[in-house]
Amino acid sequence: MEETFVPFQGIKNDLRGRLMCYRQDWTGGFRAGFRILAPTTYIFFASAIPVISFGEQLERDTEGTLTAVQTLASTALCGVIHSIIGGQPLLILGVAEPTVIMYTFLFSFAKGRPDLGRNLFVAWAGWVCVWTAFLLFLLAILGACSIINRFTRVAGELFGLLIAMLFMQQAIKGLVDEFRIPKRENPNLTEFIPSWRFANGMFALVLSFGLLLTALKSRKARSWRYGSGWLRSLIADYGVPLMVVVWTAVSYIPSSSVPKGIPRRLFSPNPWSPGAYENWTVIKDMMDVPVLYIIGAFIPATMIAVLYYFDHSVASQLAQQKEFNLRKPSSYHYDLLLLGFLTLICGLLGIPPANGVIPQSPMHTKSLATLKHQLLRNRLVATARKSIRKNASLGQLYGNMQEAYHQMQTPLVYQEPSAGGLKELKESTIQAATSMGNMDAPVDETLFDVEKEIDDLLPVEVKEQRVSNILQSLMVGGCVAAMPFLKKIPTSVLWGYFAFMAIESLPGNQFWERILLLFTAPSRRYKVLEEYHATFVETVPFKSIAMFTIFQTTYLLICFGLTWVPIAGLMFPLMIMLLVPVRQYFLPKFFKGAHLQDLDAAEYEEAPALPFNLASEAELGARASAHADEGEILDEVITRSRGEFRHVSSPKITSTTATPANDPKSLQSPRRSYSPRVSELKGVPSPRSSGRGQHSPRTGEVRSSPLGKSPIDTV
Amino acid sequence: MEETFVPFQGIKNDLRGRLMCYRQDWTGGFRAGFRILAPTTYIFFASAIPVISFGEQLERDTEGTLTAVQTLASTALCGVIHSIIGGQPLLILGVAEPTVIMYTFLFSFAKGRPDLGRNLFVAWAGWVCVWTAFLLFLLAILGACSIINRFTRVAGELFGLLIAMLFMQQAIKGLVDEFRIPKRENPNLTEFIPSWRFANGMFALVLSFGLLLTALKSRKARSWRYGSGWLRSLIADYGVPLMVVVWTAVSYIPSSSVPKGIPRRLFSPNPWSPGAYENWTVIKDMMDVPVLYIIGAFIPATMIAVLYYFDHSVASQLAQQKEFNLRKPSSYHYDLLLLGFLTLICGLLGIPPANGVIPQSPMHTKSLATLKHQLLRNRLVATARKSIRKNASLGQLYGNMQEAYHQMQTPLVYQEPSAGGLKELKESTIQAATSMGNMDAPVDETLFDVEKEIDDLLPVEVKEQRVSNILQSLMVGGCVAAMPFLKKIPTSVLWGYFAFMAIESLPGNQFWERILLLFTAPSRRYKVLEEYHATFVETVPFKSIAMFTIFQTTYLLICFGLTWVPIAGLMFPLMIMLLVPVRQYFLPKFFKGAHLQDLDAAEYEEAPALPFNLASEAELGARASAHADEGEILDEVITRSRGEFRHVSSPKITSTTATPANDPKSLQSPRRSYSPRVSELKGVPSPRSSGRGQHSPRTGEVRSSPLGKSPIDTV
Repeated sequence: MEETFVPFQGIKNDLRGRLMCYRQDWTGGFRAGFRILAPTTYIFFASAIPVISFGEQLERDTEGTLTAVQTLASTALCGVIHSIIGGQPLLILGVAEPTVIMYTFLFSFAKGRPDLGRNLFVAWAGWVCVWTAFLLFLLAILGACSIINRFTRVAGELFGLLIAMLFMQQAIKGLVDEFRIPKRENPNLTEFIPSWRFANGMFALVLSFGLLLTALKSRKARSWRYGSGWLRSLIADYGVPLMVVVWTAVSYIPSSSVPKGIPRRLFSPNPWSPGAYENWTVIKDMMDVPVLYIIGAFIPATMIAVLYYFDHSVASQLAQQKEFNLRKPSSYHYDLLLLGFLTLICGLLGIPPANGVIPQSPMHTKSLATLKHQLLRNRLVATARKSIRKNASLGQLYGNMQEAYHQMQTPLVYQEPSAGGLKELKESTIQAATSMGNMDAPVDETLFDVEKEIDDLLPVEVKEQRVSNILQSLMVGGCVAAMPFLKKIPTSVLWGYFAFMAIESLPGNQFWERILLLFTAPSRRYKVLEEYHATFVETVPFKSIAMFTIFQTTYLLICFGLTWVPIAGLMFPLMIMLLVPVRQYFLPKFFKGAHLQDLDAAEYEEAPALPFNLASEAELGARASAHADEGEILDEVITRSRGEFRHVSSPKITSTTATPANDPKSLQSPRRSYSPRVSELKGVPSPRSSGRGQHSPRTGEVRSSPLGKSPIDTV
Repeated sequence: MEETFVPFQGIKNDLRGRLMCYRQDWTGGFRAGFRILAPTTYIFFASAIPVISFGEQLERDTEGTLTAVQTLASTALCGVIHSIIGGQPLLILGVAEPTVIMYTFLFSFAKGRPDLGRNLFVAWAGWVCVWTAFLLFLLAILGACSIINRFTRVAGELFGLLIAMLFMQQAIKGLVDEFRIPKRENPNLTEFIPSWRFANGMFALVLSFGLLLTALKSRKARSWRYGSGWLRSLIADYGVPLMVVVWTAVSYIPSSSVPKGIPRRLFSPNPWSPGAYENWTVIKDMMDVPVLYIIGAFIPATMIAVLYYFDHSVASQLAQQKEFNLRKPSSYHYDLLLLGFLTLICGLLGIPPANGVIPQSPMHTKSLATLKHQLLRNRLVATARKSIRKNASLGQLYGNMQEAYHQMQTPLVYQEPSAGGLKELKESTIQAATSMGNMDAPVDETLFDVEKEIDDLLPVEVKEQRVSNILQSLMVGGCVAAMPFLKKIPTSVLWGYFAFMAIESLPGNQFWERILLLFTAPSRRYKVLEEYHATFVETVPFKSIAMFTIFQTTYLLICFGLTWVPIAGLMFPLMIMLLVPVRQYFLPKFFKGAHLQDLDAAEYEEAPALPFNLASEAELGARASAHADEGEILDEVITRSRGEFRHVSSPKITSTTATPANDPKSLQSPRRSYSPRVSELKGVPSPRSSGRGQHSPRTGEVRSSPLGKSPIDTV
């Protein structure tokens, strides 16, 4: 994305890019079938539960003028509109904490003015939304999102971690409050005598930790060892919502021996109760607001506009991180324009507006990556099994899988086809294949453990579509009707869920991983290297990593401290925006350019697209391999599959010929009987001899390779 | 151990064996230094906490005649005597649940007889002990323990799992009781009104799960990635006692807002309260017991004798499992004889007798294996570092470590020296060494990561000594004085600890691992194979494993059910003894002999001893390697270190010469520049060519190997 400030240019680019894949956004989603329900349910809970909780908070702070009904309605409405006509469908919209704080401020301001008062609060907030929408239009049209690319990893991840801290803070505060008498309740009720309060608090601890621990465990169910595959999948896909249901059920176990208010549960008016709809006709009242206040609404509007501009773009950015290998383009400008419209609509309807939310948006992408993995996996497993039944060789098998994989790629007609595909086959598999006999012999499942090998072959990809977003938005809307059921959820389960969301947002955040690295004992740092790890671990000296991370942590703590300052606290996005000049002009004075490059891995670029065969995504079944020479296919696989060459590892030291003469076992070693065809097929190099006049071999028939003649071949 | 029923023969053998290493039992323990405190504290808690809990139970059931003071005193006394003059010092003695049940039965019987009554109960129990001791003497002298070897893995592990189930049952029962009014308390106290009872129960859940989860986590601290090495070691060694202290402290946090009885805490009389010593002079009363009852005491005595015979021997057996590679001999006969004496003493002192306990005894061995590992590791790390400073080559380094290792072996003069030593160096290390240059070049820490590599080299060994046992016994004795402090521990922490003990006893139990295997999804079974696993996983068909495990589980459940039958339940050891004929005559009809052999890995044999250099265990510092030719040493290392030959792996397929011509990278691959000395040193075989007339290489100078000339070498 180039930086362009030509009016409308950014919006035009975004629209062109997204329109090209609009059709596929829908067809791709529907073709995923019922499996799409897994990420949908997962995100629905992640979206609805905080919105309900913020709605409750809003109700307390606005003396009941706005409730969870309004926050849910706004989230559902904006979500549906965005998922249909929005640019980036990975972005999740919702009423977020900053909006709640802002509306609380507006309420207390309006309440204090006799010519506004409680009655005109919603109408005045409507005017604030109108101004906000106007500012967002301006920003979108003038291409303000162009500079989003200057929000490097440093800023995005700091913001992500800050949001995680705020969620965690809310969880802890909520839990502590379970031991206290809630403000708006009658302190003389049975459930508020000290003993029951203490009991309620302890019960809350049990429920929230129960939810947190089981939810975290259930997300890892796919790698469990026990239970059948479908059960593990079910738990991994639906475990978190399931745990909310389970712990809600648990909260009813002692209901016969405790008063009605224990444990405390969600509080929200039924949507059909009188008064829940008062605000929907607010547009009539907007003309009653004094002109001075209509103009004055511009001041809070600027704050909200800056906040939304930042929040919306960063949420979108975090949902499109480079690691996800997205294939479809971003849409920052157009989405900001749409956000302006949504804010306007919400303002006129008298509901608080929704914007892009963290950590739900990146959670959404992650869950879709899991879905895509499942889909690809099923297809490849089917292909592999079919090939094995047809007595294909390992080469044919891999070729068939490669083909099936390519057929499942997203069709992006406007982009250049580029290299890409399955990862390489494991060396050990090839080795086993060759030692079993030769590469052309039919493989079976003992040699190629289908389920296991395919997991290793698959790269990260995301099922980019609109269906999960619209479905979850509709489900959030359904919550308004399901309020009587939602009220059964204990608040403590909510706090556990908040903690779960905070923890779920950490993996993949390099800032967090660097903080962990600081606490890793020097003698254990090799463990980091043994896993998948970011480049900086290898390229940047530890001292620089530490300095950089300490700087970032200090910055984070300042931002976190700012959120505690009553109104100024809302401006913490400005602090994060300040990171852009800091990153550009200040940090390079302290860190080497190359190190900064690796620590702050530049922009979130879109990954290059793969060539695509449009008609085939839903079809199963592999075509017979057209290649006659399997050996050739395998060569390509090994050397070209990722556009790069395999490392040529130095031969392992084997003790065949150097073992002391007195042991006959070395003669009988079964592994020595590898097929002669190996060398023919692969051209295994023999170790270069030491120059004592021995002969270097020409191994096998080498096709059109510059190495066809070994440089030291003397024959 | 051969089966010998010649009177005194078994005792004589045991004594001879143990006397030979008696001195080393003490010196070895003291040489371990302060590190011996880690297993000591660990076992002290595992020993004292159940004994206190059983004491409380006994107090309730005997109307205060016997209390935790007596159970602790008995455990300490028997423990000290056993650790000084006992045979197998790995065995931990304690007052166990069966003893408590038996004494409860004796009490209710005595109470119902007017000519015995409450007053003569302890005296009569004394007579029971006298008879029991007599029977134990008989069993020991006649060599009854010879048949202990017929108690194969099936019986021992079933018993271990049964004990784990009983501990877990106690934990669950205890937790449930936290919600109820305790029987002996006044139900009108504040803490027993419904709200406080509920609060107490919930608090108990928090405390017990807190203890359980943190204790389990802390045991794994050594492999944590965070924190410095000494902190991780400290937590791993003392984490469990520490967690008991931490959660006891946590239980005091809400003390200002809750009544005094919440949470409930351990109850036991102070040892200096009047009445706590009444029973110590019971020997005076023993003559007052009517003759009929003295004779009748023989009947319960037979039951206790059978129970103790079984319990004591199996506890000893489980503490000496084959996996631990113990070097010192067992002592079943002599220990049973000593148990007779101990029972006699306890009877005459009016305290309930102690016997060998599960799971504490195997826990003891495991913790000593960890200790030994630490000691060996420190020594080898020091040796390796010293060698590296002296610019030794990898061959010299390994030689020095091997020597240091042998110097630390336990001196067992009476046994034949046999092969054994460090494991092989990792192939990757050797490979790296050769690719770096040659094997004779000095190694540095980048190549040989001392801390990491040494962990891989060390085999399982146990620090067999008497110091940890006597120390923990003395500490249990100290508990009697420390009762005012122990009373601060909440009962809920105790339940968490019981659950912890149950779970800690599971790993390493093959029966348990087979149960898990039954629940492992077929597609995930390969994961079992990827870890360390028992032989049967590979050699026995899954169907047989399943059948065998289901049979064993059914048997276990029957035994568990039996424990619920009031008095007959005590005889569950008979059920387990019945397993011996079942295993010998019944099972072979349903399973193949070879399968049974693997599933029920025969006897718990002692591992063969290693040759030992008596003077050196405490000395540090390695001698300079006497070998001139490092290459030769390394050959020996690779092929002989465990008396077996390494597998000769077929060469990896590399793409050096077969890569397509259009990529120049393959020419630049840095890995291709391996040293010619590799082949010289190791004689890497080149792949046998396909017979198209190419030349097979003669690789390097091959020393006295039958493969010196490759069979198809045509040059």
